[in-house]
Amino acid sequence: MSKAALVVGSVAFDDLDMPSGNFRDVLGGAATYSCIAASLVSEPGTCRLVGVVGADFAEAHLDMLRARGVDTAGVERKAGKTFRWHGRYSQDLASRESIDTQLNVFADFRPKIPDAYRKNAVVLLGNIHPKLQLEVLAQVDRDAQTLVMADTMNFWITGEPRALADVLAKVDLLVINDEEAQQLAGVKSVAQAARAIRKQGPKRLIIKRGEHGALLFDDAGVFFVPGYPLEQVLDPTGAGDTFAGGLAGYLARTRDRSSHAVRKGMFYASALASFCVEGIGAERLLAVKKGDLDERLAAFTAMVDYGGALGFVE
Amino acid sequence: MSKAALVVGSVAFDDLDMPSGNFRDVLGGAATYSCIAASLVSEPGTCRLVGVVGADFAEAHLDMLRARGVDTAGVERKAGKTFRWHGRYSQDLASRESIDTQLNVFADFRPKIPDAYRKNAVVLLGNIHPKLQLEVLAQVDRDAQTLVMADTMNFWITGEPRALADVLAKVDLLVINDEEAQQLAGVKSVAQAARAIRKQGPKRLIIKRGEHGALLFDDAGVFFVPGYPLEQVLDPTGAGDTFAGGLAGYLARTRDRSSHAVRKGMFYASALASFCVEGIGAERLLAVKKGDLDERLAAFTAMVDYGGALGFVE
Repeated sequence: MSKAALVVGSVAFDDLDMPSGNFRDVLGGAATYSCIAASLVSEPGTCRLVGVVGADFAEAHLDMLRARGVDTAGVERKAGKTFRWHGRYSQDLASRESIDTQLNVFADFRPKIPDAYRKNAVVLLGNIHPKLQLEVLAQVDRDAQTLVMADTMNFWITGEPRALADVLAKVDLLVINDEEAQQLAGVKSVAQAARAIRKQGPKRLIIKRGEHGALLFDDAGVFFVPGYPLEQVLDPTGAGDTFAGGLAGYLARTRDRSSHAVRKGMFYASALASFCVEGIGAERLLAVKKGDLDERLAAFTAMVDYGGALGFVE
Repeated sequence: MSKAALVVGSVAFDDLDMPSGNFRDVLGGAATYSCIAASLVSEPGTCRLVGVVGADFAEAHLDMLRARGVDTAGVERKAGKTFRWHGRYSQDLASRESIDTQLNVFADFRPKIPDAYRKNAVVLLGNIHPKLQLEVLAQVDRDAQTLVMADTMNFWITGEPRALADVLAKVDLLVINDEEAQQLAGVKSVAQAARAIRKQGPKRLIIKRGEHGALLFDDAGVFFVPGYPLEQVLDPTGAGDTFAGGLAGYLARTRDRSSHAVRKGMFYASALASFCVEGIGAERLLAVKKGDLDERLAAFTAMVDYGGALGFVE
C-alpha cells in the first residue's frame, strides 16, 4: 500500500514587502510550502510534487527539495518564467495586498500525473482551478484507502461554482479558511457553514483561522487545535499551505483515515505552520530539526492539557 | 475558610441595537454578568455583589439575583438613575459603537465593602477606575488564600497608568482582552505582551479573544481554552464579564489557586461565556441548567481531546 502524498499546486517566486524589510525572489508557491511541510513528517521519497516552473527556476531549488526527500519527477519545466507574486503586508501582518501577480508558465498549467504517481495514500489538491483539480483526480487511482484533500479560494467559489461543486463531491477533507467557508456556505456562523459545506461532499472540513488555530468538523464532532502564541511572527505567507501539507504528510505516513489520526495530524500541521511564520518565506521551516518539532508539539499539547475530567459537581 | 467570591463593578441597563432587533432596558453591567456566571458554579450565597443602582432599578432584579444565591447586601441604592449604556453592534457582531453612555449614579460610585464581606476566597475587581479598585483592596482582608482577579480597559491604561500600575502590583490574575494586553504592554506579540505584563505584577494573565477562546500565561506555561463554534450568536455583550465571573466562582468554590485549577476553571468560564452570547443580554445565561453546562463542558473538552500522546516518531 502506498504511503505517498501527492501534492499538486503552485511553485512560485514571491516578492514580499514586509514590515521587517523587502524580500525578493523568495521561493514560494502553495505546493512548495506543502511539500516542505510534508517532507518533515512523512517518510523520505513519499512526497510527490506536481507543478510547473519556468526556465528561470534554478535547479538548486529542486535539488534542495530532493535532498529533503521530495520527489520532483512531477515538476514540469517550461519555456518562460516561473509564477511570480508580489505582496505587501500591513504593519501588524493581519492583512496583505497583491501588488502584482504574474502567472507566467502557471497560466497554462495542466497537471500531468506521472504513471509512477497513480497510487497515493493522500492526494492534496492545492488551490488551482477546480477543473484542473478534477483533471488530477481523473489521472490517479483511488480506492477506499486514498484520502483526497483539497484547498480552494474565493476566486473559484464565486467564479467557478459548478466545477467546484464537482470537486467537493469527490473530496474527503476540505481545508479552507473562515472567510472561504462563509462564502462557500453563504452563512456567517462557522458551525452552520460547516454543516452546509459537509452536505456538499466533504466528509471532513477543516477551517483554518490563522493565529487562532483550526477547527475540524466531522462525524466525531468538533475538534480544535490552537495557534501557538509566538514571540515573533515575521511572515504569514504559506502558513496555510504548510498546515495542509503537514497534515497530508502525517496522514500519508500513518495511512490512517480515522478522526483520531486527523486530530493528531492537526497538531503536526499547526506546529509546522507555527514554524513557517517565524521566518521569511520557508526559511525557518527549512531549518526545522526533529528536536524542534518534538519540542513544539509538546508545547502545543501542553497548551490544551487541562489535566483530567470536568463535571458540574466535582 | 471563606468560599466567597466578591465581585465589584457596574450594574446597568443596556439599550442594545442588534442585527436581530432593538432591545431596551436590558439588565446589564459587568458585575451583573459576572455574578450570574459565578452563581452557576459556586455554592449558593457565596457570590457577593458590590455595586450601585438608582431609584429606577426594580427590586425584582435584585430578587432574581438573590433567588440565584447572589448576596446583594453590597448593592447600594442611591437617588438618581442607574448606569445606562446604549450600544449598536455591526451586522456580523464583530464590532460595536457606543451611542450613549449615562453614568448616572455610577459616576460617583465609591465601593463600600460590608464588614461581612471582608474575607473572600476570590476578589474580582471589575473594570472600574483603578483608584476604586485600590479602595476595594484596602477594605478587604487578604491572606495567602485570597485570589485577587482584575479587569481593566483602554481608558484606564492610557488615562490612569500610575493608579493602574499600583493595582497590577497587587493582582494575582489579570483578565483582559488582546487589544488591552497589547496596549498595556506596548507590544504587538501576545507572547511578548504577556511577559511584559506579568513583570508588572500579575503572576497570572488571561488574555480573552472572544470567539477565539482565551490564553493563560503563568509559570506553568501557556494554556488555551477554545471558543465553541456556536450555531447562532445573538449578543456578545457581557461575555467577557461572564468568563471572569465564571472563573471567579469556580476558583472560589474549589479554593484552589493552582495552575491546574485555573485551567479547569477556564473551561467553565468559556462554557458560560458561550451560553451568554446565545441570548440577548443575560437571558440565555439565566436559563442555563446544570445539565446544559455539563453538556457544554463535555463538548468543550471533546474539542481539545486528540486522544493520546504525540511524538515525532510514533
